[in-house]
Amino acid sequence: MSGHKAGAEIEALIQILSRLPGLGPRSARRATLHLLKKKEQLLRPLGRACEEAAEKIQTCNQCGNLDISDPCGICNNPKRASEVICVVEHVADLWALERASAIKGRYLVLGGTLSALDGIGPDQLNIKKLVERAEKVEIKEILLALNATIDGQTTAHYITDALEYCDVEVTMLAHGVPVGGELDYLDEGTLSAAVKARKPF
Amino acid sequence: MSGHKAGAEIEALIQILSRLPGLGPRSARRATLHLLKKKEQLLRPLGRACEEAAEKIQTCNQCGNLDISDPCGICNNPKRASEVICVVEHVADLWALERASAIKGRYLVLGGTLSALDGIGPDQLNIKKLVERAEKVEIKEILLALNATIDGQTTAHYITDALEYCDVEVTMLAHGVPVGGELDYLDEGTLSAAVKARKPF
Repeated sequence: MSGHKAGAEIEALIQILSRLPGLGPRSARRATLHLLKKKEQLLRPLGRACEEAAEKIQTCNQCGNLDISDPCGICNNPKRASEVICVVEHVADLWALERASAIKGRYLVLGGTLSALDGIGPDQLNIKKLVERAEKVEIKEILLALNATIDGQTTAHYITDALEYCDVEVTMLAHGVPVGGELDYLDEGTLSAAVKARKPF
Repeated sequence: MSGHKAGAEIEALIQILSRLPGLGPRSARRATLHLLKKKEQLLRPLGRACEEAAEKIQTCNQCGNLDISDPCGICNNPKRASEVICVVEHVADLWALERASAIKGRYLVLGGTLSALDGIGPDQLNIKKLVERAEKVEIKEILLALNATIDGQTTAHYITDALEYCDVEVTMLAHGVPVGGELDYLDEGTLSAAVKARKPF
């Protein structure tokens, strides 16, 4: 809508939406039009939801999760096992594990992985906080739920070294065939790992 | 983030974003996380932009464009040729033509095309308004900039019939090879049209 000055409000909306992951300028324009067409059902509610989230959501100082309270609902929940810390790269991973109800303990969000290419060293990650928490008596297990990528595994090795003097067991997620997965479509690495880790039926 | 009640504010944001075209539940979650991470740069500005747009943007009663004024900036612009009305299906098409600075006249947004399948008849479209405008003395040309689809062409024929008693010339966009397009990748319909409409070099 360039060359047409009245569109500043519309242009602002397109600009912001186009900076979201998965949206480019074109799809941001489509989304903006959709929002403008559904003013009461979408545009106003989105405005309110953004304001509300900006007001209320904060980062948990203990684990790095996003929640309305700090410490977050998971860190604060007395029913959670206090002897296990599950280490994840991003909040999205924490959410995925929560959706699966797979973790009984608490979390620590690293905020990424070590990466020489992107210049991310240990100080940019929450590793110091992890070691501090792991030194507490009640912590028995650190479960590394990092991505099975080179950077993820490098980070896992670094963390294991950093935890050397803590009295904790460091564990990692199992590699294997995804539930519902077809062997024919799996890569060789996954298949080898699944065979190596085979179990009695 | 189901099963974790503190996420209501986050869940609300995901829900609304997932209803935008081009975003599913998964990408809406990614977008939400991105917004929450960039609270001051993205989340708050998006909230403000939504409120602002909801407050200020309205549909032009004359042409159907979205703008801060009614009649819109294009209908109000005295420099626009007042003898041409360009008929488009959606506001997005109007924007596309404005980006190309291709139209010197004014517009009429139909709001869709006739479609027996979707149950859209002439009364659901802005055809009556178009005929009213076309009856005015100063209007000399109605340019049909409709999509080259079956529904678009059906609608074009219907409009031509409806304008039978108006003293206007009805024109349509040229079919041909897109600028920068390679012949090898074009469909037969476009190629035939381009050959039929060939011009002296």
